[in-house]
Amino acid sequence: MPLYVGIDLGGTNIKAGVVDETGRVLSSASVPTLADRGPDAVILTMAQLARDVAAQAGATIEKIAAIGVGTPGMIDFDHGIVLSAPNLKGWRDIPLVAALSKITGRLVVIENDANAAAMGECWLGAGKGGNVRELVMLTLGTGVGGGFVVDGKVVHGKFGMAAELGHLVLIMDGEPCPCGQLGCLERYCSASAVGIWATRAVESGQASSLASLRSKGQEITSKDVFDAAAAGDALAKQLVDTLAAQLATACVTLCRLFDPELVVIGGGMIAAGEALLSPIRREFTKRSWSAVKVRTKIVPAVLGSDAGFIGSAAVALHADRAAHTVA
Amino acid sequence: MPLYVGIDLGGTNIKAGVVDETGRVLSSASVPTLADRGPDAVILTMAQLARDVAAQAGATIEKIAAIGVGTPGMIDFDHGIVLSAPNLKGWRDIPLVAALSKITGRLVVIENDANAAAMGECWLGAGKGGNVRELVMLTLGTGVGGGFVVDGKVVHGKFGMAAELGHLVLIMDGEPCPCGQLGCLERYCSASAVGIWATRAVESGQASSLASLRSKGQEITSKDVFDAAAAGDALAKQLVDTLAAQLATACVTLCRLFDPELVVIGGGMIAAGEALLSPIRREFTKRSWSAVKVRTKIVPAVLGSDAGFIGSAAVALHADRAAHTVA
Repeated sequence: MPLYVGIDLGGTNIKAGVVDETGRVLSSASVPTLADRGPDAVILTMAQLARDVAAQAGATIEKIAAIGVGTPGMIDFDHGIVLSAPNLKGWRDIPLVAALSKITGRLVVIENDANAAAMGECWLGAGKGGNVRELVMLTLGTGVGGGFVVDGKVVHGKFGMAAELGHLVLIMDGEPCPCGQLGCLERYCSASAVGIWATRAVESGQASSLASLRSKGQEITSKDVFDAAAAGDALAKQLVDTLAAQLATACVTLCRLFDPELVVIGGGMIAAGEALLSPIRREFTKRSWSAVKVRTKIVPAVLGSDAGFIGSAAVALHADRAAHTVA
Repeated sequence: MPLYVGIDLGGTNIKAGVVDETGRVLSSASVPTLADRGPDAVILTMAQLARDVAAQAGATIEKIAAIGVGTPGMIDFDHGIVLSAPNLKGWRDIPLVAALSKITGRLVVIENDANAAAMGECWLGAGKGGNVRELVMLTLGTGVGGGFVVDGKVVHGKFGMAAELGHLVLIMDGEPCPCGQLGCLERYCSASAVGIWATRAVESGQASSLASLRSKGQEITSKDVFDAAAAGDALAKQLVDTLAAQLATACVTLCRLFDPELVVIGGGMIAAGEALLSPIRREFTKRSWSAVKVRTKIVPAVLGSDAGFIGSAAVALHADRAAHTVA
């Protein structure tokens, strides 16, 4: 049975694993990226990790049908080049596909890391076993990211910049986003943004248990807000309700454009669990057409940090099959 | 050379034509839909029109490789069924693909009419000759509609309801839309909406040459607003600027999600020409990331009401090729 290696290249760690074509994860491992060593060394590390996870799965690298790599940054998909990756020192116009396939002798394909995670959740995560081919993933962490699966494939766009979910315009002419534009979803709904809203409310004098954190000089985090809401703090509850309404509004727009089977919510903020999902679902139901609200499910991501390498293996599988169809 | 029939099924007229695989339009014709006769009669009319345009192109129906039909309403793509079509009397759960292929003996495929128009513009309209595979089309008429082409194919979504561009949320918790929800793009930027905004402004006492229309008891149309703006009316100019900023905001969101090569603006309002496009482009440039504003072009649709049948022929061509690839 064909085996695929998926690699998730992150700024801190490289995670990789072997997945077979039925979706069994046969091995996985993680090593530090040590990005300071530069792209060549990092690519050698990826090649070695691919060999290691192949060996753990009882195979040699020669038995691997294809390798998929999920990378951050801007990608030239046509040429397999990482154009730039802010979190990886020296990564500018790096021909990753050519370099890694030269070292390993395998078919190598590249994917945006957020798209890879969406594909991973689609295949073996939130969509597991459902033959899901239409999925939107929204990742709520320090920033807001995500990816789309349309007709079983991720969407790249013409210039490799599709699925910038964090920068859909939530509020026209709204708050300035660090991206340089106004009103982006990320500026309202990232974990950092929740902390900023809470801080702003407290500093404007609104009564809240969160004020004590500020008076101790601590940053208010999104976790603090969810904890305070759970303890009954009125301001925190209001902040969560506003967040849920904003995220639901984004989900409504995404559903009207993509009509997915699943909207998967992932990222660090998902640690809040139903305290986050339940109000999003309530607001989504309120704001959706009747047909949509009963059909499209809003569900949590389940693979955590494994989604990237698993989705990268899925991308490798698709590329391998496409290569055989053409041949 | 393979020939394809495209049919655009509208509430008033059925338009059809033959297109060859290189994109030459060999024939076209239009007949009244006479929807009152019910679905069976309309399907017979479509079959006859397919034969007629084939004959005009010097072929028989047997020489047609496939027929594509663009239809309004809700579609079950998996089964080729028109679930409902508000503008076509009696169209509920109509197995259009089965019925039309039985009569004609041809491979028949069905497509949403707005998606078909997007595909038509992509192939032989605004995208002609450019091998465009990533395109967003926004149609500004009585309502706002449109379609997406992603990786050379239209996007259906899981339940056939993707690309409801008129109902992306432009203004969170904004004006009530006839769709039952709040803040939809259509509620702000359709031709009807422009008339409503103008009327509201005039009735609130704002000075404008448009006031004379109201005092004569006439409806203010979007054309009136563009005419008044061209004549220097300050209120009309402000309405056009607001419209352009709103449409540009929608384009920014669409570009961040799809990263298309072209955004094609079509529909009746495009009659305003550069008086509409130029301010949209100006606002789009102001609101876009630097990489996007120099790469994604905002262009007018060029096929008018021919886009539907041409795009339907393109869908037929793709289905025919896919059938041969599988075989």
